[in-house]
Amino acid sequence: MTTIRDVAKLAGVSVATVSRALNNSGYVSISAREKVEKAVKELNFYPNEVARSLFQKKSKLIGLLLPDITNPFFPAIAKGVEDCVNERGYSLLLGNVEGDSEKQEKYLRIFEQNNIAGVISAVQGNPINLKNMPFVSLDRINEEQKYVVHSDDFLGGQLAAQAIIDGRAKKVVIMAGPENVSASKVRLKGNKDILDRYAVPYEIFQTESFHLDLAEETAKAVFNQLSEFDSVIASNDIYGLALITEAHKRGIKVPEELQVIGYDDMPFSKMMTPPLTTISQPAYEIGYKGAKLLCNVMERDSVTEKRIQLPVTLIKRETLREKDEHE
Amino acid sequence: MTTIRDVAKLAGVSVATVSRALNNSGYVSISAREKVEKAVKELNFYPNEVARSLFQKKSKLIGLLLPDITNPFFPAIAKGVEDCVNERGYSLLLGNVEGDSEKQEKYLRIFEQNNIAGVISAVQGNPINLKNMPFVSLDRINEEQKYVVHSDDFLGGQLAAQAIIDGRAKKVVIMAGPENVSASKVRLKGNKDILDRYAVPYEIFQTESFHLDLAEETAKAVFNQLSEFDSVIASNDIYGLALITEAHKRGIKVPEELQVIGYDDMPFSKMMTPPLTTISQPAYEIGYKGAKLLCNVMERDSVTEKRIQLPVTLIKRETLREKDEHE
Repeated sequence: MTTIRDVAKLAGVSVATVSRALNNSGYVSISAREKVEKAVKELNFYPNEVARSLFQKKSKLIGLLLPDITNPFFPAIAKGVEDCVNERGYSLLLGNVEGDSEKQEKYLRIFEQNNIAGVISAVQGNPINLKNMPFVSLDRINEEQKYVVHSDDFLGGQLAAQAIIDGRAKKVVIMAGPENVSASKVRLKGNKDILDRYAVPYEIFQTESFHLDLAEETAKAVFNQLSEFDSVIASNDIYGLALITEAHKRGIKVPEELQVIGYDDMPFSKMMTPPLTTISQPAYEIGYKGAKLLCNVMERDSVTEKRIQLPVTLIKRETLREKDEHE
Repeated sequence: MTTIRDVAKLAGVSVATVSRALNNSGYVSISAREKVEKAVKELNFYPNEVARSLFQKKSKLIGLLLPDITNPFFPAIAKGVEDCVNERGYSLLLGNVEGDSEKQEKYLRIFEQNNIAGVISAVQGNPINLKNMPFVSLDRINEEQKYVVHSDDFLGGQLAAQAIIDGRAKKVVIMAGPENVSASKVRLKGNKDILDRYAVPYEIFQTESFHLDLAEETAKAVFNQLSEFDSVIASNDIYGLALITEAHKRGIKVPEELQVIGYDDMPFSKMMTPPLTTISQPAYEIGYKGAKLLCNVMERDSVTEKRIQLPVTLIKRETLREKDEHE
């Protein structure tokens, strides 16, 4: 690897001069600067991040905490985060937490050991030991956090309930997402707000997790434990999908006998049979805007909006019944 | 942050002694070692990775290159990689390349700047500038690479073709994956080997990409450009899924009039309607075993198997016609 010594040698100046030129600190004559720049170009020299990090006590690394990388919502967020931090000259240290608080603590320790410049997290809760580290929370936010980016979960909950009512719901099952996830609780509030307003009866089925592996057994449990429902508001697209599959197995027609709405609009939800009606939230944009906010905080740029809420939209497809226009 | 100086002070020994004790290098008396260990515990001290990295010219970071983090196959690989490297005390620097060779070069430069200890890559090709860096290639491998982990794509191609023939294929369309991806080429060879052996006519539809966003228009193109086929071997589950959706739109019954087999067995493929028949490859295991191989290479442990091939299996569901037992 080319070192700062090679650059100094080729440029015919001291190592200290090269260092001052590269860090834009202290006096360097114009001719020395030109020589250094020429040598840097010729040798294709990139300063070692580790040396820079040790000197400045801060690296160009950002820690990314995700709850579950196999849930397609989070890779979409990660892609947005990555695109933005790369533009700003940072790289991502990956931490896939999977609901394991010990694992999260371990990641945070590793992040600290690597002098990371900031943390961006889609995991619920306030990591301890972060102290004054720049920190942005995505999606699973809470009231106390200073910097957050999320979508409008209350509106999402309302839109889902309204769409189900438009499909002539007589009895609704709300599959409520995990209780420890803030977004689930807010969506549930949105659901109830509308269902109560129209006095549509509903039952709540509490799910433990958003995990892919549990979707099928959860769908079975809904049918085994509840009865006489004609509408389901699923906790996300995967759970909606599992529910439709289970309905088919039981000879229940979707949407004629059972209508289902998902949440997230995952890339493959439009390719279902029937294509899944769902609430779309802008995962990539949540990631991108969250990373931009973090970079601005880290670089002490002016931050006008500290808590950013993005819109959600109803994506009508074919798993809800048609609205009865004559009613 | 607690520093090595705090540890030395509490232990009542010199900084150099603490350093020797922590790095297991040079002589440290038993009593000094005990004092250091006690102080480390008491202060909850973790050595700064950056300082260690600069000193040893090698960090505890591994660079992970992925072709596309939104294709569910790769998060599953990433999870396997992460679980293994964490067990071995390493962390991952994420690089989502998306077929952009400039982006890849940029990541490799960032990896180098961070003194990474090794690279694990699911991107096709041999990264230049890696020199003697420990490097393991996953899935999209080539002949020249020393350390690889992949699944048996030839057998996968054969199994898919055999299953299609068992479903009484009269004319087959092979959606061949991108030509620059080795796994696609090998699978195609496996397909042809069996179809030729049984003299079943086929046409090849060359796809440009595995990208999610292109699946729907590719499915449309298959139907627009080709005709009179009753069987499709799709390049992966997502493309198979898009094809089934397009068939439904055109009033073509799956599997009666058109049978389709996918590839990968993504977590949601069993939740399709009808559930997708596919070839399962062990994505998590590819990641885990690849990371284990890399760690062994980096740590100069004995490596008995340098090129690891994992088995694939046919997962029979409902998108192929039943075998005619009377024929």
